[in-house]
Amino acid sequence: MSEQTEPVPIELEDAAYVLGPKAISAILYAVDIEDQAKLTELMEPLHPADIADLLEQINAFDRSRLIRLYDREFDGEILSELDESIREEVIGVLTPQVLTQAVREMDSDDVVDLVEDLEDHQQETILDALEDVDRAAVQQALGYPEYSAGRLMQREVVMAPEHWTVGEAIDHLRATPEEELPDQFYHIVIVDPRLHPVGNVTLGKLMRSRRETKLMDLLEETFQIIPATQEESDVAYAFNQYHLISAPVVDEEGRLIGIITIDDAMAVLDEEHEEDILRLAGVGEGSLSDRVSETTKQRLPWLAVNLLTAIAASLVIAQFEAAIAQIVALAVLMPIVASMGGNAGTQSLTVAVRALATKDLTGANVWRVIRREVLVGAINGLIFAVVIGIVGVIWFGSPALGFVIAIAMVINMIVAGLAGTAIPVILDRIGIDPALASGAFVTTVTDVVGFFAFLGIAVMVLL
Amino acid sequence: MSEQTEPVPIELEDAAYVLGPKAISAILYAVDIEDQAKLTELMEPLHPADIADLLEQINAFDRSRLIRLYDREFDGEILSELDESIREEVIGVLTPQVLTQAVREMDSDDVVDLVEDLEDHQQETILDALEDVDRAAVQQALGYPEYSAGRLMQREVVMAPEHWTVGEAIDHLRATPEEELPDQFYHIVIVDPRLHPVGNVTLGKLMRSRRETKLMDLLEETFQIIPATQEESDVAYAFNQYHLISAPVVDEEGRLIGIITIDDAMAVLDEEHEEDILRLAGVGEGSLSDRVSETTKQRLPWLAVNLLTAIAASLVIAQFEAAIAQIVALAVLMPIVASMGGNAGTQSLTVAVRALATKDLTGANVWRVIRREVLVGAINGLIFAVVIGIVGVIWFGSPALGFVIAIAMVINMIVAGLAGTAIPVILDRIGIDPALASGAFVTTVTDVVGFFAFLGIAVMVLL
Repeated sequence: MSEQTEPVPIELEDAAYVLGPKAISAILYAVDIEDQAKLTELMEPLHPADIADLLEQINAFDRSRLIRLYDREFDGEILSELDESIREEVIGVLTPQVLTQAVREMDSDDVVDLVEDLEDHQQETILDALEDVDRAAVQQALGYPEYSAGRLMQREVVMAPEHWTVGEAIDHLRATPEEELPDQFYHIVIVDPRLHPVGNVTLGKLMRSRRETKLMDLLEETFQIIPATQEESDVAYAFNQYHLISAPVVDEEGRLIGIITIDDAMAVLDEEHEEDILRLAGVGEGSLSDRVSETTKQRLPWLAVNLLTAIAASLVIAQFEAAIAQIVALAVLMPIVASMGGNAGTQSLTVAVRALATKDLTGANVWRVIRREVLVGAINGLIFAVVIGIVGVIWFGSPALGFVIAIAMVINMIVAGLAGTAIPVILDRIGIDPALASGAFVTTVTDVVGFFAFLGIAVMVLL
Repeated sequence: MSEQTEPVPIELEDAAYVLGPKAISAILYAVDIEDQAKLTELMEPLHPADIADLLEQINAFDRSRLIRLYDREFDGEILSELDESIREEVIGVLTPQVLTQAVREMDSDDVVDLVEDLEDHQQETILDALEDVDRAAVQQALGYPEYSAGRLMQREVVMAPEHWTVGEAIDHLRATPEEELPDQFYHIVIVDPRLHPVGNVTLGKLMRSRRETKLMDLLEETFQIIPATQEESDVAYAFNQYHLISAPVVDEEGRLIGIITIDDAMAVLDEEHEEDILRLAGVGEGSLSDRVSETTKQRLPWLAVNLLTAIAASLVIAQFEAAIAQIVALAVLMPIVASMGGNAGTQSLTVAVRALATKDLTGANVWRVIRREVLVGAINGLIFAVVIGIVGVIWFGSPALGFVIAIAMVINMIVAGLAGTAIPVILDRIGIDPALASGAFVTTVTDVVGFFAFLGIAVMVLL
């Protein structure tokens, strides 16, 4: 970690970011012929994050051979960049010496991130590898709830009392031994005598100010204090909303105990989004590195819920068997109404789920948003009612059938707008993640209403 | 912008981040009774990002009254935080003096972000409000393609030649007038005589090192150069992947022309995710502040595509009218197979779209991923085939019917896994955003295959 890597200019093509297939082939070839020198040479220009990506993309057999051959070059940062699904496997392959060395190089917040999802015996192995001070820090962090600010923060903080001047702060910084400072830092946190943070001073301001200037005269305008028990998703939201670069973390008594920097907040934001997207699609935690059995299990619950939904819709259809037996065209056309409602409902619910996540949908505008979605549903419903009505008339030569499907379409699209907005809002209010559960409810509603409206009106009008 | 706002501790509840309904009511009441002093007092503790959220959540009538009453207090940063959909409206309400003042306070990159989506006459008004130097900077940035690094960067950069020492850099920083420096900066970019960036030095290292130390001895390990024409989504990816805090931007000749900081990259990451989620759900650009007509228009194309898909599925059903007329149970059960396939396909495609976006799905593992998804589809297909087969037998008392639906289920789930992965990969290869178009294709496939397999096998087995 002490060498300066070559500055790698980013090319206009995607290619520069990712390991191209050629680079991966070359690396795997070096592994095949067990050429350790060649492997080290090929891996040398790669950032640990890229090496982690490489390990995720190759299969388990190549992965273990590569790690064994790479051996002592294995950097701690690779471990923290690695997808959770293969961390345990990789740690299992590393020799104890390499693991110890790798873990000792890591920042305490990265070690926390690494060990929190490991099984007990691996967790112990890693904690044992740490020096006493670091182990204590990691164990303290593990005392905070999962996904909390306390797990996310790093303990090394640069702080200064309120009465200090610029000169005193700079002298103190110079006198502090390297290992007590964070790897990177951008602010000095000013604290009162009880260690409560009162403000931030950027290093840029510090450097440009006269030695006798009071730190308190240089405070940044935007300053946010984060309680250690705060959920990490709210931390990421605050960083993004207020353009924070770093923020102090405090314990229950409001005392400074650590700091969170924006790069970690950005990683959390990324994970939260990933989670939202996957949950909306009914894919639990999914990752490409998961085993087939793992993935099958993750997707099963949502499919099971969908099966119940589909059976509920079928029960509705079953009520109209007699009508369908008389007019088979009903069976041909009925999926159209349900499908359009399902799609319109998904549109509304996705907008609502996002707006809830970004705190743009609140008590202040919920009724206006619901009215708006219903109106959008009604207008699009009318437009597609006309289209499908005409299709129905032309296809089956029955104006009455065209009329029936048109009316059913309008009804289902209005219901889709209403359910697509109201269901996520209600789930959010009662504390259920709307990204996770809305889809099943909304589709059930649009399926049931779609089939019932179409077949019900058909019975009234056509029979 | 010169006052220090009170440090606002973040509460454990969501409430502290957002404007509670109470705060909004109080503000709207002050607007109702036209109490300017009260309004200013209530708005004072709010961050510009929160004021922007407030303006987005109230209706257009309240919005214009609030802005008129708030008047001179209106900060430029509110404009840059505002959702695009209501920016033009808000700018139209501001008096020319307030607008000029607000725009002059903004950083050049924020002005670019503001004007790029405005109509021509409003764009001119704002450019006219700027001082000459700033106007030139904004116009230069507008010369770069939309969504490129050139639009995202700020022009103010702190740089130093390779031969400088720490002492020379610090003296230079102190001698530079405030207005030529960026608002916040965390690195000094080291450049060669042709202005090509060669490395970054953090302010923390600079401050802790001896005056005679060479800057070149303090370079950071991770260093990325970003071409001005780079797409902003790739910029955000690089920041997140390599934990960059700031990165220099260069022109076609590789000369340093600006810098991008992580807070802007984080905002881009957030927007990209938003776009992906909304596109996956077939909601173009959607925002809650859009007008009904706007929203209706945005959602229409996807619904139109879905209508075609649904009609295609109906055409398949129409081929089996005779069979349905004989066995109405087929009409009752057929949506189940299509629906399960649609959901399984959506699961696979969402995982694939995400993995493509994060560059985790590449040429190196695409075949393995497809095999895996097909296998997952087959296993879940078998599980649900047994379940639905039993349901079919019990419900309709026909083992043959149970067998038919079970076989159709397995086939459609396997096809779903295959189509759900292969379609996004193919779209990505031919340069179409997989988030935008995959859904329609995958659902068409699972609908058509679902109905065809179920009804086709039914004809063979039951008739």
